[in-house]
Amino acid sequence: MSHQTNAPNELQPETDALAADVQPRTEDKLIQLQTLLAEADQTRVCSFLAEQSDIETAHLLASFPSHDRARIWVCVPDDLKGEVLAEVGEDVRTALMLDMAPAELSDLTKDLDAQDIAEILETAEPEVKEAVIESLDDSMREQVQVLHAYDEDAVGRYMDPNTVNVKSDVTLETVQRYIRIKGLLDERSQEFMVTDKENRLVGAFSLVDLVKNPQETQVADVMYQSESLLDEMDVHDAAVVLRSKGLRFVPVVNAEGLLVGQLNIDNIMEITREDADSTLLGMSGVRDDEELFAPIMTSAKSRGIWLGINLATAFLAAYVIGQFEAVLSQVVALAVLMPVVASMGGIAGSQTLTVIIRGLAMGQIGGNNRWWLFNKELWVGAANGLVWALVVGAIAQLWFANWTVSLVITLAIVINMTVANVSGIAIPLILKRMKIDPALSGAVILTTVTDVVGFLSFLGLATLLLLH
Amino acid sequence: MSHQTNAPNELQPETDALAADVQPRTEDKLIQLQTLLAEADQTRVCSFLAEQSDIETAHLLASFPSHDRARIWVCVPDDLKGEVLAEVGEDVRTALMLDMAPAELSDLTKDLDAQDIAEILETAEPEVKEAVIESLDDSMREQVQVLHAYDEDAVGRYMDPNTVNVKSDVTLETVQRYIRIKGLLDERSQEFMVTDKENRLVGAFSLVDLVKNPQETQVADVMYQSESLLDEMDVHDAAVVLRSKGLRFVPVVNAEGLLVGQLNIDNIMEITREDADSTLLGMSGVRDDEELFAPIMTSAKSRGIWLGINLATAFLAAYVIGQFEAVLSQVVALAVLMPVVASMGGIAGSQTLTVIIRGLAMGQIGGNNRWWLFNKELWVGAANGLVWALVVGAIAQLWFANWTVSLVITLAIVINMTVANVSGIAIPLILKRMKIDPALSGAVILTTVTDVVGFLSFLGLATLLLLH
Repeated sequence: MSHQTNAPNELQPETDALAADVQPRTEDKLIQLQTLLAEADQTRVCSFLAEQSDIETAHLLASFPSHDRARIWVCVPDDLKGEVLAEVGEDVRTALMLDMAPAELSDLTKDLDAQDIAEILETAEPEVKEAVIESLDDSMREQVQVLHAYDEDAVGRYMDPNTVNVKSDVTLETVQRYIRIKGLLDERSQEFMVTDKENRLVGAFSLVDLVKNPQETQVADVMYQSESLLDEMDVHDAAVVLRSKGLRFVPVVNAEGLLVGQLNIDNIMEITREDADSTLLGMSGVRDDEELFAPIMTSAKSRGIWLGINLATAFLAAYVIGQFEAVLSQVVALAVLMPVVASMGGIAGSQTLTVIIRGLAMGQIGGNNRWWLFNKELWVGAANGLVWALVVGAIAQLWFANWTVSLVITLAIVINMTVANVSGIAIPLILKRMKIDPALSGAVILTTVTDVVGFLSFLGLATLLLLH
Repeated sequence: MSHQTNAPNELQPETDALAADVQPRTEDKLIQLQTLLAEADQTRVCSFLAEQSDIETAHLLASFPSHDRARIWVCVPDDLKGEVLAEVGEDVRTALMLDMAPAELSDLTKDLDAQDIAEILETAEPEVKEAVIESLDDSMREQVQVLHAYDEDAVGRYMDPNTVNVKSDVTLETVQRYIRIKGLLDERSQEFMVTDKENRLVGAFSLVDLVKNPQETQVADVMYQSESLLDEMDVHDAAVVLRSKGLRFVPVVNAEGLLVGQLNIDNIMEITREDADSTLLGMSGVRDDEELFAPIMTSAKSRGIWLGINLATAFLAAYVIGQFEAVLSQVVALAVLMPVVASMGGIAGSQTLTVIIRGLAMGQIGGNNRWWLFNKELWVGAANGLVWALVVGAIAQLWFANWTVSLVITLAIVINMTVANVSGIAIPLILKRMKIDPALSGAVILTTVTDVVGFLSFLGLATLLLLH
């Protein structure tokens, strides 16, 4: 037993084979299962799945189109089905539960914890949900109902209602003995709550504290004052707080100050992943619950909305261009160069937008530093605008040998890139103040601005300087 | 002591004030510090910072422009400076270390672990780095050098070389006693490694296993066969594996099969966050280490490269348009409608690109399912293309009342949106095979394709059908 870091590097003759074994390839299991399904050997599919964990099975299910999923699902061992169902995304779960009788679902969920049951039932048909809730024992039913009573985005909906609570005047030894007698810990329990007799939170201590301190120590002497979150708080706001403080565990209390649950590392990772996902997908106009293997029509519909919104903004840009038909029909070079102006503004703006959306997600923007950032982005836009405008102007001059056209495009690019950068910060901040997620609508509003400003400045200046 | 979930909801008279306290606002500390700095009251700045944790201080430093950082840094308590330095991003760290003498840096880092020291020294000037490494004790120097010997993206560079290793034939009670005598655990230790006498990994067990099982149990009876990663493996590939298996801990072994460290939950969260960050920023053409409060010129330069690349592709699109001056000068409606074609293709393509990049990051794409996806995206593109092309065609007809122009734009949009969706999957898969990060260059290549195909199909068809 040692707290060591480096072992003597004795090279062993038989180790090359071992080394090859330990580097797992991501695609291996996926390809294995694809092959077994292609061979239509259901027995081997089942024996393959019997060896997978719940998370691996959930991941595999999400990596196949729906027609393969039914064949995989029947092979999932019965005692794992509940956990797999809790683990998969909403779309996959809905599809799997489509033909499930209430009795079957009750059976699958009977060993799950309240959080998992609550999550699964959210996607169930009302009558199935009713029947399953009826079948739960009293304490579990109450827990599930408590979770369902919270808003979809409330901390209370995401929290783990199971906490291990101890009083401050017992010794660590007593805590350890009690844990073993009652069988209290699961793999997610890394922290203990210290509560008073009214169930008010007075502190917390970790499993590490429990083990590393002398066992005759009292809980009061190892516990720390823990921060806590209110159960009604928006979970995405909570995630910003947790990230800025680097917290990996936080107790959740209700408006009366009583302990109601905890966000543990798993909950926090889940929230962080969901937030990152919805930012990435939202910025590209994909619904954040569109799964990769969704059927064609589902994906087409889900993305269609965004295409429709974009179409409206594209026609707005076209309308702006339409106001300048006169100059366009006289100087065809303008039509050729027009997209360059819009494109440079679009890129510059979306660079700023992304940096700002990320800063908001990290909780780095607040108070008066937005003015510093505003000023900074203005000058970044102007500086890059000037540099690239001169490059574009030079190329335009070489191409069309028309000094006025070159001057017009140079000016238009400086204007558009500066406006783009300023919009890239102003739009997300305004949207946030209006309580609209900037990741979701920021990009389309920004593109509208850069297109309209780009075409307006370019063709407007051209009309002034070129039209006789 | 109870494993309980819901307490009786007795409303207490004094609890409203308490409830208000527990909901932290993200911006509060930021604004507090801004105010103190504005008042130029250095004593109060220092007493404010004395109350912050290392992570909070690092977060605050990253939320101020560089000229404020120096004033904040002098107030950071000396015993926290090392940890803060390890915690902040590379840009902030480089700036803070600029005027630091080797002796000062040695002093700050003397209580840090090998991982933190290795990370800090990466950004140090060569001679400073040399001097600090000299000042370390032998065991720490060796650990730091082992970490530095790994590739920048290797698992070995990210791993925690400190593991708590035990033999399989001791009892849990012995392990607990030994931990307390040696003071082995820190907050990140959640798993123990079981090794043989050559330091080969034979299994692992968790802190929870240690506490919840009868203490006379032997380690051999609670340990499980743990998966492991090779130290030379690319850390981003490793992250895909860890995500697909939902692992929160994994031992790291070297090519000789000997245990060299572990990735714990913190390392895994860090890698996951970095990967999500670089995907988001990369897709928008921002260098993934550009910090929000970087000076104007730093940000301008960092984003300029991407603007330059975009300019090249924009001129490629302009060149394509330039080939059709004849038809453009005859039918000015084409110049007006042209951006609509490019824009719809761009949006459709980037929706697909994002979904595929995310699927790659989750390890969901492999084997023959790419063909299923390819086929799916083709039809999603064609379906949405057809629907929106008809809408665009109808609007164009109402606007310009020219059947040929309407037909041309309808066809061009179907073509461009279908090609866009197919490119949205083909480009990232090809880039991945060429070992280029699709998040970094996928978007710009895709835009080039959708612009060129859009203008080519629209103006090409127009030339065929309209030019006489």
